[in-house]
Amino acid sequence: MSEERVLDFWFDFSSPYSYIANTWVDALARRHGRRVRRHAILLGVTFAAAELKSPVSYPLKREYTLRDFARSARYHGLDYQFPEVFPQMTQHAARVFWFLHGTDGPARADDWARRAFGAVFQKGYNLGDLATVEALAVEAGLAAGQATAISADAHWKNRLREACDAAIAVGVFGAPYFVVDGEPFWGNDRQPQLARWLTEGPY
Amino acid sequence: MSEERVLDFWFDFSSPYSYIANTWVDALARRHGRRVRRHAILLGVTFAAAELKSPVSYPLKREYTLRDFARSARYHGLDYQFPEVFPQMTQHAARVFWFLHGTDGPARADDWARRAFGAVFQKGYNLGDLATVEALAVEAGLAAGQATAISADAHWKNRLREACDAAIAVGVFGAPYFVVDGEPFWGNDRQPQLARWLTEGPY
Repeated sequence: MSEERVLDFWFDFSSPYSYIANTWVDALARRHGRRVRRHAILLGVTFAAAELKSPVSYPLKREYTLRDFARSARYHGLDYQFPEVFPQMTQHAARVFWFLHGTDGPARADDWARRAFGAVFQKGYNLGDLATVEALAVEAGLAAGQATAISADAHWKNRLREACDAAIAVGVFGAPYFVVDGEPFWGNDRQPQLARWLTEGPY
Repeated sequence: MSEERVLDFWFDFSSPYSYIANTWVDALARRHGRRVRRHAILLGVTFAAAELKSPVSYPLKREYTLRDFARSARYHGLDYQFPEVFPQMTQHAARVFWFLHGTDGPARADDWARRAFGAVFQKGYNLGDLATVEALAVEAGLAAGQATAISADAHWKNRLREACDAAIAVGVFGAPYFVVDGEPFWGNDRQPQLARWLTEGPY
C-alpha cells in the first residue's frame, strides 16, 4: 500500500493530559511506522457540542483532577507547572498552529505545539495573553507582529473553526483524543490500549 | 508496625470499570503486602453529591464509553457482556455485601462482590431485579428469602447509606476509586499509577 499510515491526535493547548500525550505520541507512532497527524482544537467548542464541561468545573472532581494532572506528569517523568490561568483561551496559539501547518507544513506546526505546551505547562504562561503568544512565535521564527496578524485573520480563524467542526464530526468530545484506523482512544491514560492496538491490531 | 496496611476500594456493582478493577486489585495488593478493603456504594448517590452524571448520560460520550468498556475488558483478558439493563439499581446487592461483611467478615463479602460483578458483566443479569439477587444469594450459600429480607432490613439499608456517606466524605465521586495511605486514584485506568505508588511510595 502506498497510503501513508497515520495516527490522528486532537488536543487543546490548555489540556494538561494533552501536554503529557504530546511528549510520547511521536515515538509511539514511529515505532509502528506511523506519522502523527496533529489537530489543534478548542475544547470549549467540543465540550459544548457534547453537552460536557471541564472536569475542573465540578467542585469535588476538581480537587482530584488537579492532583491527578501533576501526578500523571510525574508518572511520565515530565516537568509540570500548573499555569497561572486555567483553563485558558488557546485560540491565538491554535490559529498560529494552523498557519504554520498550512504554510510551512506539519513538522513546523508540530514544533509549535511542543513550544506552546511547554509555555503553558513548564513555564506556567497564559496563552490567552496575545503578547505571550507573540513572544513565543518570535522565538519560533515568526516576524514580530505576525502571530497577532494571524490570529486576527479570517482565513486562520476559519481554519480553526473547520478543525473543531471536523473533530466534532469524528466524535471528539475531550482531549487528548486519538484515532487509529477508525478506532478512537480518549485520554492520556489510554496509552497502553493504544500501544497494544498498534502492536497487535484490533482486539 | 503492627497496623495492617490496606488498599481501600470503592465500587458500584453497575460499574463496568469497577468489574474490571475487581479482578486485579487483590493480586496487586497482595504483591505489596496489603489487604483490599472493599466498599460497596451507590454511584448515583456519589454522582449527586459531586453534581456529576454517568458518562453514558451524555449523548456523544455514551457511544465512545460503551466501546471503551468492552475494549478495556478485552485489554484485561476478561469475559464481558453488556448487561440487559444499564445502568442498573444495585442497592439489593450492595446491602447483601454489607450483611456478609458485617456477619461473616470481609472475605465472604469479597466473594459476593466477585459473584455479583460476574452476574452483571459476564452473564448480563439485572441486579435491580430482586429475584435475580435472591438466586445469586442462594448460590452463595444464603437461605431462600434471606437476600430479600436483608435488602428490606433498616439496619442494612442504613449500613449502605453510611458507606455512601463515608465515601463522599473521603471525596469519592466515581468508581472504581482507590485510596492508598491517603493518596486517591480514580479509575480502572489508574492501575499503573497505583502500582507504581505501591512499589516506590510517593512520587
